[in-house]
Amino acid sequence: MPDSDLLPSWRPGPVRTAILEFVRSVTTPGPSFVPPPERNAAFDNDGTLWCEKPVYAQADFLLRRWKAMALADPGRAAGQPWKAVMADDQEWLAGLLEHIPDVIKGVTEAYDGITVGAFDAEVRRFFDTQRHPVLGVPYQQTGFRPMRELVGLLQASEFTVYVCSGGGRDFVRVVSPEMYGIPRQQVIGSGTTLEYRDGEVYRTRGVDEPIDDGPGKPVHIWTRTGYRPLLAGGNADGDIAMLETARLAVLIRHDDAGREFAYDAGAQRALAAAAERDWLVVSMKDDFAEVF
Amino acid sequence: MPDSDLLPSWRPGPVRTAILEFVRSVTTPGPSFVPPPERNAAFDNDGTLWCEKPVYAQADFLLRRWKAMALADPGRAAGQPWKAVMADDQEWLAGLLEHIPDVIKGVTEAYDGITVGAFDAEVRRFFDTQRHPVLGVPYQQTGFRPMRELVGLLQASEFTVYVCSGGGRDFVRVVSPEMYGIPRQQVIGSGTTLEYRDGEVYRTRGVDEPIDDGPGKPVHIWTRTGYRPLLAGGNADGDIAMLETARLAVLIRHDDAGREFAYDAGAQRALAAAAERDWLVVSMKDDFAEVF
Repeated sequence: MPDSDLLPSWRPGPVRTAILEFVRSVTTPGPSFVPPPERNAAFDNDGTLWCEKPVYAQADFLLRRWKAMALADPGRAAGQPWKAVMADDQEWLAGLLEHIPDVIKGVTEAYDGITVGAFDAEVRRFFDTQRHPVLGVPYQQTGFRPMRELVGLLQASEFTVYVCSGGGRDFVRVVSPEMYGIPRQQVIGSGTTLEYRDGEVYRTRGVDEPIDDGPGKPVHIWTRTGYRPLLAGGNADGDIAMLETARLAVLIRHDDAGREFAYDAGAQRALAAAAERDWLVVSMKDDFAEVF
Repeated sequence: MPDSDLLPSWRPGPVRTAILEFVRSVTTPGPSFVPPPERNAAFDNDGTLWCEKPVYAQADFLLRRWKAMALADPGRAAGQPWKAVMADDQEWLAGLLEHIPDVIKGVTEAYDGITVGAFDAEVRRFFDTQRHPVLGVPYQQTGFRPMRELVGLLQASEFTVYVCSGGGRDFVRVVSPEMYGIPRQQVIGSGTTLEYRDGEVYRTRGVDEPIDDGPGKPVHIWTRTGYRPLLAGGNADGDIAMLETARLAVLIRHDDAGREFAYDAGAQRALAAAAERDWLVVSMKDDFAEVF
């Protein structure tokens, strides 16, 4: 296929060219060649493969659940994160990442004691019924088309492609095949502790350490794949560790207020690292011909 | 391909027929059909895919390391498992599974603080230089040929096939591609805790809970695959939980003293469960035309 037919939702330019050159270099016999079993790529999910603003989809999913829990058991509203949900404390809720211990408590208790299959069905129901609050479409339609094309190009080039989400593995898994063409077993992410009894796997009230963010990402990638990623893509400070282990590091920059959202908050360190280490910075405004 | 050409190292009979029937039933349109993404199989490693007697290969690997550690630092010989190694306490060493806390201490300290890449190289060196103490061949040649054929048949039938070892994931990974045609990312197993810093993933002195044995196996399989196994194969009591989650459970029975080893020790509960639940019991003596 001629280059001009590849990655059609990417604008021609140095970024698209650098990606195509990289893929060619590792798939063509020569000094940079990498045999297919070692061709691996890992992409962060929120803000990299799909839209993460104004809220993470998983936060939307959890807020609904926390509200239902507090309505069913009003005593819960004495503690976070249930208190913030019931008080509609937008400031607290907007800063979820500043309240990690409370959030983890909320995450692990939200579906404590149900089977992984029942949790899967809850997530499926969320995606079947809820819409993105700004874009007005089901969350499954908020993936970035250029990134879906990149995943497809890598897979066609015999890469094994993983999602590597700071969010929940068992949340992302439910839509990853249909959204990205990435099968369930190739979703890496954070998880609650699990327990087996009598033929079923149950969620329990703990979190698997480390969570799959920051320095946890390279640990999860090794654990799950047995390789360092050949190509990694991210968009935020939590992706720095993963990006620095990859041969090609791709950093998505959210600078398109018209078609998506424009923000560098949470990515300043990553942008500085990109400049220092010559990572490939993708401007959504300049490099994406289409976004969704 | 006609049935008679499939699984050539299996003797014709009800066991081989049941396996072929099962594979046909899930791959042929009809009530038992399973779409390819959901076709998953998980096999225990020690005693199921390769020989585990007279010692686990990983035990051989560790005993050598423990001895080197105690020679370098004689104070270590005051505590287990170093004490047993230095005293050549065969009774203690033969019952490793009865000393799990000491063994875990030995496992996690043996390669504490080195990178996962350096550990990989240590394992590679072991396999390149050591031989099975009874069979006299490199450990890589102690895999069971009929099981390798079964893995291949499943892969040709669009199954994703996993090793699910109670032993170390990062140990088995090194030889799984060459021995079984199972890629590194499809090796599930126990692991030490890991830590990322400055571009590298290091082994640290802890164990990831649960270990991948007994009730830990279905937990690891879910975590790694997002599915229950369609087919699972094991040979010991530690495989019962995994086997009871599978649609087809295959239990290997070591009853061939002439060509391998004959023992039911450690498998009595599994054999009882197999009889009760109609699992498929494979007699190595009767059902394997060739063993290695």
